[in-house]
Amino acid sequence: MTEHTPQQQTASAPQKTVLLVTAHPEPRSLTSALSAFAADHLRAAGHRVEVSDLYAMKWHASLDADDFPDRAPDERLDVLAAQGEATRAGRLSADIAAEQEKLRRADAVVLQFPMWWFSVPAILKGWIDRVLTFEFAHGPAVPPPYSEGALAGRRGLLAVTAGARESAFTDRGAHGPLADLLFPVQHGVFWFTGIAPLEPFAVYGSPGVTPERFAELTEEYGRRLDGLFTDEPVPFRRLDGGDYGRDMRLLPGVEEPGTDGLALHVGPRG
Amino acid sequence: MTEHTPQQQTASAPQKTVLLVTAHPEPRSLTSALSAFAADHLRAAGHRVEVSDLYAMKWHASLDADDFPDRAPDERLDVLAAQGEATRAGRLSADIAAEQEKLRRADAVVLQFPMWWFSVPAILKGWIDRVLTFEFAHGPAVPPPYSEGALAGRRGLLAVTAGARESAFTDRGAHGPLADLLFPVQHGVFWFTGIAPLEPFAVYGSPGVTPERFAELTEEYGRRLDGLFTDEPVPFRRLDGGDYGRDMRLLPGVEEPGTDGLALHVGPRG
Repeated sequence: MTEHTPQQQTASAPQKTVLLVTAHPEPRSLTSALSAFAADHLRAAGHRVEVSDLYAMKWHASLDADDFPDRAPDERLDVLAAQGEATRAGRLSADIAAEQEKLRRADAVVLQFPMWWFSVPAILKGWIDRVLTFEFAHGPAVPPPYSEGALAGRRGLLAVTAGARESAFTDRGAHGPLADLLFPVQHGVFWFTGIAPLEPFAVYGSPGVTPERFAELTEEYGRRLDGLFTDEPVPFRRLDGGDYGRDMRLLPGVEEPGTDGLALHVGPRG
Repeated sequence: MTEHTPQQQTASAPQKTVLLVTAHPEPRSLTSALSAFAADHLRAAGHRVEVSDLYAMKWHASLDADDFPDRAPDERLDVLAAQGEATRAGRLSADIAAEQEKLRRADAVVLQFPMWWFSVPAILKGWIDRVLTFEFAHGPAVPPPYSEGALAGRRGLLAVTAGARESAFTDRGAHGPLADLLFPVQHGVFWFTGIAPLEPFAVYGSPGVTPERFAELTEEYGRRLDGLFTDEPVPFRRLDGGDYGRDMRLLPGVEEPGTDGLALHVGPRG
């Protein structure tokens, strides 16, 4: 564990701001316990933590016309156009605007969730769909994707619990490698918007977590949270870094030796 | 195009039942137009079509305690346990029970959606999360995953529209190959539950679809729908077929020559 000096722990000015988004319907769940641990641990290290507990907030999951209060009721809903217009005008619904403010303030984003059907729960997908609007998180008016990105300067950590055993999520595991299953979020959400993604923190065999195992897990999670601003992010390639052609395909021979599949989009480490 | 005989088109007993689940907030969207085309085309071919238009149904996306009306209000919500108990007792909320009935009646499932953040919209993820309950779609009381499966005998087709160009979704495309991005649904939802997944039907460059392009797209989509019960599904490997070890990892040397990444889980074709 990283040592924290009393100065760090009691500093009146917080070191960094972390947005923790958590998604489980049961306040006594493993997800909720890990979220509470993360918030406490980060605060003890002197950080400012904002928590978006999506179920507690009764977060509306489905993007719809109510996201755009200024829109005429009979107007055809073009999602990107409506998002862009409302974002530029500062006229998104209040729940979306509040989350965007949290993201603006954040130096890091932690998404804490149970893996449901090899992906994020619907309520968390709905946070992604609705909050990361066109012209806020991507679009011609903000820095380009997979490069600097609209939310550049921030770090992202996925903290996920899965019911199955770890071997099933390895390189030859039947469910697919965890990195591949999470690629749409790690690369397609975090890195697309410029958030530098860390290796996910994953808990396997989640239904069988005993108090002893929970203590081990939080020790490991604590180390990962201690490294939130210092660990090396996954070095996904920049779209403007010369590795991709104008057709957005990776140029021949650019890949790291021995890589294949989605790992082609990871550049040299360290 | 497949030719349909008058007998087929006017048969009093429908040939097959298709469940079409569609997810877009705008009834005048490309997604909605493609859904309407698919329903008409399948009906013209003599099939019975049930449509779950999730936005029109105001489908509740977030799995929560209301899914289980018999549960005591202060009871800790263990999602799998609650799903299993309510499924066995026939006491799931009415909206979930209705969708499960549609799935029981269906010979094929078509999911029509826009790709949002490299995945399904939250409302469709919420259909997956809530409808495919433990002991209905998976669990010890039903046939095992990635094999016969709880919903075996059915076919699955993803019909997806994406804003970006096709090259960005190819083997070396910056967004990742379409098959990899959709793997959590194709393999993790369809094949996990025994539904035989066809190759997805994908529309790229969705914001620029002209009437001429739409006519081309529906011609292609029509051919895919004509093959819904005859095209060869993606031959994902069976977990009980001798390809995986007891640790659920693919055995060494089993893979098809030249395959890597998530394609390891696809067996020999044709």
